Amino acid sequence: MAAKAAAKVSPFAPARLPDMPAVPGVRLAACEAGVRYANRTDLMLAVLDAGTAAAGVLTRSKTCSAPVLWCREGLARGKARALVVNSGNANAFTGKKGADAVRITAEAAAKAVGCAPHEVFLASTGVIGEPLDAGKFAHLLDGLAKLAKPDAFEIAARAIMTTDTYPKLATRTADIDGIAVTINGFCKGAGMIAPDMATMLCFIFTDASISQAALQGLLSTHVQTTFNCMTIDGDTSTSDTCLLFATGGAAKRGQQPVAGADDRRLEAFSAALHDLMRDLAVQVAKDGEGLSKFVTFEISGAESWAAARTIALACANSPILKAAIFGEDPNWGRVVMAVGKSGEAADRDRLSIWFGPHLVARDGERAAEYAEQVVADYMKGREIVIRADVGVGAGKATVWTCDLTHDYISINADYRS
Amino acid sequence: MAAKAAAKVSPFAPARLPDMPAVPGVRLAACEAGVRYANRTDLMLAVLDAGTAAAGVLTRSKTCSAPVLWCREGLARGKARALVVNSGNANAFTGKKGADAVRITAEAAAKAVGCAPHEVFLASTGVIGEPLDAGKFAHLLDGLAKLAKPDAFEIAARAIMTTDTYPKLATRTADIDGIAVTINGFCKGAGMIAPDMATMLCFIFTDASISQAALQGLLSTHVQTTFNCMTIDGDTSTSDTCLLFATGGAAKRGQQPVAGADDRRLEAFSAALHDLMRDLAVQVAKDGEGLSKFVTFEISGAESWAAARTIALACANSPILKAAIFGEDPNWGRVVMAVGKSGEAADRDRLSIWFGPHLVARDGERAAEYAEQVVADYMKGREIVIRADVGVGAGKATVWTCDLTHDYISINADYRS
Repeated sequence: MAAKAAAKVSPFAPARLPDMPAVPGVRLAACEAGVRYANRTDLMLAVLDAGTAAAGVLTRSKTCSAPVLWCREGLARGKARALVVNSGNANAFTGKKGADAVRITAEAAAKAVGCAPHEVFLASTGVIGEPLDAGKFAHLLDGLAKLAKPDAFEIAARAIMTTDTYPKLATRTADIDGIAVTINGFCKGAGMIAPDMATMLCFIFTDASISQAALQGLLSTHVQTTFNCMTIDGDTSTSDTCLLFATGGAAKRGQQPVAGADDRRLEAFSAALHDLMRDLAVQVAKDGEGLSKFVTFEISGAESWAAARTIALACANSPILKAAIFGEDPNWGRVVMAVGKSGEAADRDRLSIWFGPHLVARDGERAAEYAEQVVADYMKGREIVIRADVGVGAGKATVWTCDLTHDYISINADYRS
Repeated sequence: MAAKAAAKVSPFAPARLPDMPAVPGVRLAACEAGVRYANRTDLMLAVLDAGTAAAGVLTRSKTCSAPVLWCREGLARGKARALVVNSGNANAFTGKKGADAVRITAEAAAKAVGCAPHEVFLASTGVIGEPLDAGKFAHLLDGLAKLAKPDAFEIAARAIMTTDTYPKLATRTADIDGIAVTINGFCKGAGMIAPDMATMLCFIFTDASISQAALQGLLSTHVQTTFNCMTIDGDTSTSDTCLLFATGGAAKRGQQPVAGADDRRLEAFSAALHDLMRDLAVQVAKDGEGLSKFVTFEISGAESWAAARTIALACANSPILKAAIFGEDPNWGRVVMAVGKSGEAADRDRLSIWFGPHLVARDGERAAEYAEQVVADYMKGREIVIRADVGVGAGKATVWTCDLTHDYISINADYRS
C-alpha cells in the first residue's frame, strides 16, 4: 500500500498536475478515515446534482467485489446522486459482511446527500479478503457532503490511491452544438492491472446533457481501445470499475440533450472523451508498480484489431520480455516468442520488428542493417516503443505497459506482511 | 545462459542424480562445440538402433524454430536413428539460414550414423534470432557417433542445459507381458517455460517394442497432465519439443510388439511413462529461473479438468501472486483474484481456499478458524501447496510452478547483454 511503496516515485510522475476546472453539478471531498493506514486520505465522496446520468463498465471477474455487484444494479437504473470510494480495503471476497458494508455505506451516503440508496455508486480498492468495516467511515459521509466543493478533483484522486505514486487526473473540453462542456476524470493503478472487459478504478464526470444510453455506448466503445489496451502485470482485478457521470449542467447554458451515441452532435465530445481515457490509461501504465520504463507495443499486419491487441498483450504480459527491457537488453527474440505464443495468426517468415526507429528483424530473420550497439543505446531511454508487423492482414493495435523490475517484486512481496 | 546463472543453484537440486541404466538400442555422447559459451558441453548425439519408432509433441508457437519444423516432418514418417541437440542457440527466427543449418546438421548426423537425414531428429535451445552456424559442430558428429555409449544419459542431459542449475533425469521400468522394459528420460527448463500444447525440450527413450501409433497416443495423452500442467513464467517457447523413442530392443528378450495405445498389455508401461513424465515436469518447475519455492496449485470443484487446469494456470502465471509467495505472505486474496480472472466458471460464494493443511477461506469469505500467524509460518517452507475448490462441479487439476523472485528478474535482465 501507499504507506510502504510511496518512497520511490515513478520517473513518469508529472512535474505538475493538470488544473482541473469545475464540472457544473459535481462537488467532491475526501478525508482520513483510517480504513487501513493512518495519515492518508482514504475516503472520498462525489455529490452529483439531481438528473445525473450514470454509465459504467465493470470487471467480469468471477470473484468480483461487493461494490461491483452494487454498481451493476445501479447502472441498470442509470441515475446517480453520489459516488463513495474508499482505499485500503477492496471489500472483495467478503461474503455477506461485504454486502452489508455496501448497504450501510450506500444508506449513509443517501442520507447525507438526500437521495435513494440506489442512486449511490460505490467502489473499494485495497487488500482482498479482509472484511471492510463500514462503521469506520459511514458516519463521516454526512460531514463530507457538507464539505464537498467543485475544485476538489485532486483531493479526490489522491484519496483513491493505493500503490500509485502520483494521482492520475485529466481534463478535456468539447463543444456540443456550440456549447462548451467539460470532461474531468481521475483513476488509480498500480498493480493487479490488466483490464480485460473493464478497467481499474476510473471516474469521469461531465456536465454534458447526454442520455444514459448514449453515455454507456461511448464509454463501452472507448474502453476497448484505452483501458483495455493497457496492462501492468496481466492480473485482472476483482474490483475494476469505470464510471462516467453526466450531470446535464450544460443544459442550463442551452445545450440540448443528446439521446444517441451515434448522434453526430457528439463527435467532438466522443473524441475528447476517448482522448481523456487514453491519457488516463497511459498515466496508469506510467505508474506501474516498480517500473523503470514506459513501454508501448504497436502491432500491425494482424488479421484484425482484436488479433493485434491479443498479440500486443502477449508481449506486454510476458515476464521474460519485460525483464529484458528492464535490463536494457534489445532482446527481440523474446518479441518473436510472445508473438508466437499469442495463438493469433502470424507469418513467421514475414515478421518484422522495430525497436524505436530501428529495424531489427525483417521477413523472419535479423535485419542486415541491425547494429546491436545502436539498439542497445536506444534501450537506455525511459520510453520504449516496440513495433512488430506480423504479415498476415491489416489489423493493428497499440498496448501500453511498463517493464518488470526488482521493485515490482519488492512491492508485492511485502504488501501485507 | 548457464555461464552466468549457474552461480546460484536451485534449493531443489537433487543431492544425488538417479542411476540411469542402459536402454538397449540407445547410445549417447556429448562434447564442447563452443556454440555460444566456452568450457561447457553444448552438443549431444543419441544414436538409435535400426527399427526405432519415434513419437513427439511439438510447440504450436506461430514462430516455431527451424528444428521444430524439421521434427514435424520426421514424425510424419515416425522412424528415428539419431537425435542431435545443441544448446546456446535456439535456431529460431533464423529464416532460410536456420533451415540450412538444420539440413546441414541432419546430413552430417546421417552420414555419421549411417541412415537417411529424415531419420535424424533435431532440437536447439538458447538465444532466439541469432543465426546458428552449423559449421561450428556438424564436423563433430562423426566423432560423437564413435564415442557414443549406453551409460551417457547424464552427460547428454548436461549438454542441453541453458539456465538450468541441475540436469533433469528420470528412469522407470515396466513389464509388458512379463518382460521388463526400461524408460529413461531427460529434459531441460528453466525460463520461457509454459508448455501449452507441448513442452520444453524433453527426450525419452525405451527399449519397448511398441508401434509408432501407440507411442504417439501415450505421449500425447500424458503430456496433457504432466508438462502441460507446469509453468515457470507463462512464456511458451518457440522450441518446445518432447520426443519419445522406442528402440524395440526388448523384442530380443521376447517382448511381443504392441500395436495400439489402448492395448491392456501397455497398462503398466503407460503408468510408468506418465510417472516419469510427471517426475521430469516437477523437476523443471523445481529449477525455475531464480526460484526460492516450489509451488503446487490444486484446483477442484471446477466444471471440468480443462477448466480446473485453466484456473490453476491463472494462479500459477500470476506475477502478483507469485511475488507474494516469494515474500512468504499468505495473500490468499490474490488467489481469489486469479480464480476470478481465469474466465472459467466459479461460484464466488462457495469458493474455499487452503494453504497447505490450513483452511483460510470457506464459502466466499475468510474462514473463522483462520490464524494469520499459523499460515504465515507455513509460507516459510520451501514447498507450498495451495488448494482451491471453486464450487461448481467435479473437475480437478494440479499445476506445478515456482515463485517469482528478484533472481528471475536478474537472470532475465542480463541474459544477452
